[in-house]
Amino acid sequence: MAKLKVGIVGGTGYTGVELLRLLVPHPEVELAVITSRGEAGLPVADMFPSLRKQVNLAFTDPAQADLASCDVVFFATPNGIAMQQVQALLDQGVRVIDLAADFRIRDIATWEKWYGMSHACPEVVATAVYGLPELNRERIRSAQLVANPGCYPTSVQLGFLPLLQAGVVDESNLIADAKSGVSGAGRKAETHTLFAEAGDNFKAYGVAGHRHLPEISQGLTEMVNGRKIGLTFVPHLIPMIRGIHATLYAKLTRSVDLQQLFEDCYADEPFVDVLPQGSHPETRSVRGSNHCRIAVHQPQNGDTVIVLSVIDNLVKGAAGQAVQNMNIMFGFAETAGLEVLPLLP
Amino acid sequence: MAKLKVGIVGGTGYTGVELLRLLVPHPEVELAVITSRGEAGLPVADMFPSLRKQVNLAFTDPAQADLASCDVVFFATPNGIAMQQVQALLDQGVRVIDLAADFRIRDIATWEKWYGMSHACPEVVATAVYGLPELNRERIRSAQLVANPGCYPTSVQLGFLPLLQAGVVDESNLIADAKSGVSGAGRKAETHTLFAEAGDNFKAYGVAGHRHLPEISQGLTEMVNGRKIGLTFVPHLIPMIRGIHATLYAKLTRSVDLQQLFEDCYADEPFVDVLPQGSHPETRSVRGSNHCRIAVHQPQNGDTVIVLSVIDNLVKGAAGQAVQNMNIMFGFAETAGLEVLPLLP
Amino acid sequence: MAKLKVGIVGGTGYTGVELLRLLVPHPEVELAVITSRGEAGLPVADMFPSLRKQVNLAFTDPAQADLASCDVVFFATPNGIAMQQVQALLDQGVRVIDLAADFRIRDIATWEKWYGMSHACPEVVATAVYGLPELNRERIRSAQLVANPGCYPTSVQLGFLPLLQAGVVDESNLIADAKSGVSGAGRKAETHTLFAEAGDNFKAYGVAGHRHLPEISQGLTEMVNGRKIGLTFVPHLIPMIRGIHATLYAKLTRSVDLQQLFEDCYADEPFVDVLPQGSHPETRSVRGSNHCRIAVHQPQNGDTVIVLSVIDNLVKGAAGQAVQNMNIMFGFAETAGLEVLPLLP
Amino acid sequence: MAKLKVGIVGGTGYTGVELLRLLVPHPEVELAVITSRGEAGLPVADMFPSLRKQVNLAFTDPAQADLASCDVVFFATPNGIAMQQVQALLDQGVRVIDLAADFRIRDIATWEKWYGMSHACPEVVATAVYGLPELNRERIRSAQLVANPGCYPTSVQLGFLPLLQAGVVDESNLIADAKSGVSGAGRKAETHTLFAEAGDNFKAYGVAGHRHLPEISQGLTEMVNGRKIGLTFVPHLIPMIRGIHATLYAKLTRSVDLQQLFEDCYADEPFVDVLPQGSHPETRSVRGSNHCRIAVHQPQNGDTVIVLSVIDNLVKGAAGQAVQNMNIMFGFAETAGLEVLPLLP
Repeated sequence: MAKLKVGIVGGTGYTGVELLRLLVPHPEVELAVITSRGEAGLPVADMFPSLRKQVNLAFTDPAQADLASCDVVFFATPNGIAMQQVQALLDQGVRVIDLAADFRIRDIATWEKWYGMSHACPEVVATAVYGLPELNRERIRSAQLVANPGCYPTSVQLGFLPLLQAGVVDESNLIADAKSGVSGAGRKAETHTLFAEAGDNFKAYGVAGHRHLPEISQGLTEMVNGRKIGLTFVPHLIPMIRGIHATLYAKLTRSVDLQQLFEDCYADEPFVDVLPQGSHPETRSVRGSNHCRIAVHQPQNGDTVIVLSVIDNLVKGAAGQAVQNMNIMFGFAETAGLEVLPLLP
Repeated sequence: MAKLKVGIVGGTGYTGVELLRLLVPHPEVELAVITSRGEAGLPVADMFPSLRKQVNLAFTDPAQADLASCDVVFFATPNGIAMQQVQALLDQGVRVIDLAADFRIRDIATWEKWYGMSHACPEVVATAVYGLPELNRERIRSAQLVANPGCYPTSVQLGFLPLLQAGVVDESNLIADAKSGVSGAGRKAETHTLFAEAGDNFKAYGVAGHRHLPEISQGLTEMVNGRKIGLTFVPHLIPMIRGIHATLYAKLTRSVDLQQLFEDCYADEPFVDVLPQGSHPETRSVRGSNHCRIAVHQPQNGDTVIVLSVIDNLVKGAAGQAVQNMNIMFGFAETAGLEVLPLLP
Repeated sequence: MAKLKVGIVGGTGYTGVELLRLLVPHPEVELAVITSRGEAGLPVADMFPSLRKQVNLAFTDPAQADLASCDVVFFATPNGIAMQQVQALLDQGVRVIDLAADFRIRDIATWEKWYGMSHACPEVVATAVYGLPELNRERIRSAQLVANPGCYPTSVQLGFLPLLQAGVVDESNLIADAKSGVSGAGRKAETHTLFAEAGDNFKAYGVAGHRHLPEISQGLTEMVNGRKIGLTFVPHLIPMIRGIHATLYAKLTRSVDLQQLFEDCYADEPFVDVLPQGSHPETRSVRGSNHCRIAVHQPQNGDTVIVLSVIDNLVKGAAGQAVQNMNIMFGFAETAGLEVLPLLP
Repeated sequence: MAKLKVGIVGGTGYTGVELLRLLVPHPEVELAVITSRGEAGLPVADMFPSLRKQVNLAFTDPAQADLASCDVVFFATPNGIAMQQVQALLDQGVRVIDLAADFRIRDIATWEKWYGMSHACPEVVATAVYGLPELNRERIRSAQLVANPGCYPTSVQLGFLPLLQAGVVDESNLIADAKSGVSGAGRKAETHTLFAEAGDNFKAYGVAGHRHLPEISQGLTEMVNGRKIGLTFVPHLIPMIRGIHATLYAKLTRSVDLQQLFEDCYADEPFVDVLPQGSHPETRSVRGSNHCRIAVHQPQNGDTVIVLSVIDNLVKGAAGQAVQNMNIMFGFAETAGLEVLPLLP
């Protein structure tokens, strides 16, 4: 059977190389084209020697790239690029998965406020499906355009989902204290993510407001059928490369077997792993893999529920989830290409 | 003028070597004796080459050590050691600062439950002063026995203090999401703190209950005149050596100028630094120093107040605070020996 | 076709979990048994949550383990264990790959001196094949017992091999300045490999003599047909988890196209990658993979040749090479189960 | 007595903030001015919160800065800046210490080749004194202009000095395998020094030729009275913030008591610490301090001598050595302001 023809726009960042790592050995796909304006002509393996002997592709200039002949195109570009190009691809019957934020927020005014630009195609936003399979699997199946979730939003939404769907917590008082490895900031050269700045150091950032706040709020709101929720979100920077750890706090409004609730909620999910009672998931337990591992605690049997949720920000938080979405869209096994085991230690 | 004679019991751990780093150049003290059962006879600088050329002392067997002739003795021992020896020293007029937990919890039953042993001298506990200068400076001045606070409790109490003293938050719903560098686990060989286990990794631990919880609760309760408080405390392990970052959450019960409140509260404190509005303190900004740096946030002017509080767990969270207490007890300048600048980067 | 039955003795260390990571998805094998004296009965995934949902095996007590029914048994045990048990397995027709050092050194007196114990089966040593495929592929094919090389020896021997086989350097003056990540020290709890000791720190160790010196010397001597070689070997500890970087120095005795020499030597090797002229291989370019990447330099066209050689100490330096040896022994594709791409970043 | 008036040109990099850390508490100096073109007007402590409450100075625009009234000016600028400004200051009687490379290489053609620019004041180079106190203390005393050595050159020269001065090694065959923490690359934003690139990774760089090679060669040549030396120099990048570890190799030409040789050579040096026989200095043993710790080995009593030399690249390798030079130039105690103990762990 012919393999799926895949294109990647903007392959020089961390989500780009991660897409390559996952797509190259994927049994159902053929990587047809990968573009980069700045690196056109450069063999991909010259930029990422980890891919030597296994990836022979070179970067193509976006202007020359034949994306229209692809079955699916991934955008691993900065925010604001995909929205310029998606309509043309959709018109040609190409399905699109955007790993940036262009199509994540349905309220255009909100998007424009947090991302500081005008949206190029508000009408397309309405057709996009938010690509969190645990929430939207059926709609992803037939989507022409998938908005791949952000890394923090993935870890936070998967942690709150069972509680909000079951209606057992105070929706007005949710706290997400989230911590991310430095690769979450991308591969662009900036002072604050230098080794000598971010190493042996820990800090919060964006406490006044982070772009992932409206994305998470939108998702949580949907889980409670559009009722208003109250969310406090504080991101932090961890001196490690990969991984997100979300520590979530909520107030129980009624008694419930929390462990059972979480296990039932995720019983059929291939990539959400509810740990046994009393566990503390480690970020390294998902390093390089598409799993989200979750533990739920109720200290001293009080009314506070604590959820610990870990993902690899570049996999379940980006490229892996994008591949999972592709698998769903094209009817492949949902775990195809995503069976690689975590690297530990 | 004769210098203060100082003894250290148990000098081979991280708080021990940190006491040496601070006391050796201290202008008012003479380091008279440092004990170690296991390393008796070994020059201190053979174990810690960082002290070569500057510390000539060798470890003394505790049985041989003339602690009674000291003016003050620091216990940098595991929990449960100081309580065996303190009474004898106090009887001989020696003042004592215990860096372990033996005298921190006034309720003996609570202490015995969390520390898993019987207390050897409950009556002495009642005479101990909890050594958080920002709370108890006057009582420390005349204390014979100071219980030096734990590292997490220092960062959390200093963060909540202005809010609780002013009575502006819901006392029943306090959350402390705290993160510590690995040196907080001490220098004993254990698998989970190996470089290959704790490196490039992040996790919560002790969510069901951590020994610092009752210590923090006791302190916060005092700040509200003994009213019951509700505290959720979740510690995490950061892949870095030194530093604690506490992220604190509370619900405002009335409108208040938070920045002003914090600045007023700590205006005269030599070691608490309230950062300008909108700041995010980094742990490295206090690396090696006795400062606690604090920022206070009220995102979107909502009813949630967030306090970010950072300390060096081995300095303000242990040895530095112990020296600060000694300075207060003996009438030295409170900053004597503690003026060393943080190491950045 | 029936899959190969595989056993692992001693699966709780880093080479054990790494064998699991590689063998579980291996298309030709079935993992039949994994033993651990200390953890008998414990599900493997309880110790290594990274394996949850993908490894269902539990540790078996060695006394109960049916190793005799395996086709091949890997020993991932401390030095001195395999030599007690190998003869019995060989007698039962089981082929063995020892990842420890018991069978690496052919001269028994030398082995006993460096490893500080009497060898339990000197006669078996003579039958073992040293499992460096690039040197001994044909002999490995029919070997009943393979002595899997050490991590440093793999990186150093692959770097010197082209030079020594071609006879272009002074054999009496070889220098190997090697650096290893901390996982090379294993998973046992020791003070000097704690995060707070090995982190943000760099040091040499074993300069007076390291156990890998005689192993490397033996290998290099064979490359020059038994002539005596002169080797200086200095290992260092890097504050990172995985990876070895060997920097090798030799004096050229005649002019040669070094780049061509290396490319020719390794043209057919699936796991040795000679980088383009002027390259500097990074350890992360082989993180999690079985590749050795090599660059060769001749600065200022002088008579000093410098070889840079990187491997993942747990893969090509241990478990991966063991699987490569198994593939050769049983006639599988040499890359079977070893095609996983490096994790970068 | 009036304190020495000190100016710093270019204070926003790592050597700048390190000069501040050392000069602010220095008993003999008054920090009069610190310049920055980009950050003029900004309080220093706003950029480096570690200095809050202890440094009240703001950055001054270089055009406005009254450097002429200073007794000494430190240049902590990129290469090529100091050479534009030094003559004017010298003419006004200001003594200058340049932490960049502008005055380190006496042969102008060599300098211009390696630094890729024309030298602005070749005649001033001839008057500069190379500021390695262990080599040039007397000349430093009266110098008007000191060229502060590079970080690698300091560690390598101090390691080879005893061997070359005693004439006991083959001068044509010296190898320096050096490793540096990432802060050595400075504070400018570049991709290859990002945390996610340099973390958990190790590589060599500049093997074909590094700017510190001619500087080291010049120094070693002087130690052998101008005879030609043969040096191979390979730098590597360690995933840690501070510290250099140089591993030096040479061939002994005659028998000598190496330990005694080194101890005698450095007996009177306040900042060079020769460790006991068999030692392996760790970079952390000098973290934040101006010491160089050295060990010398002769494995198996062969003809190869190995020297292990560690410094903090920002202290003895930059700012600390600059302060040491200032102390010598102005007749202060050589250790003034440099007595801070290393930070360990």
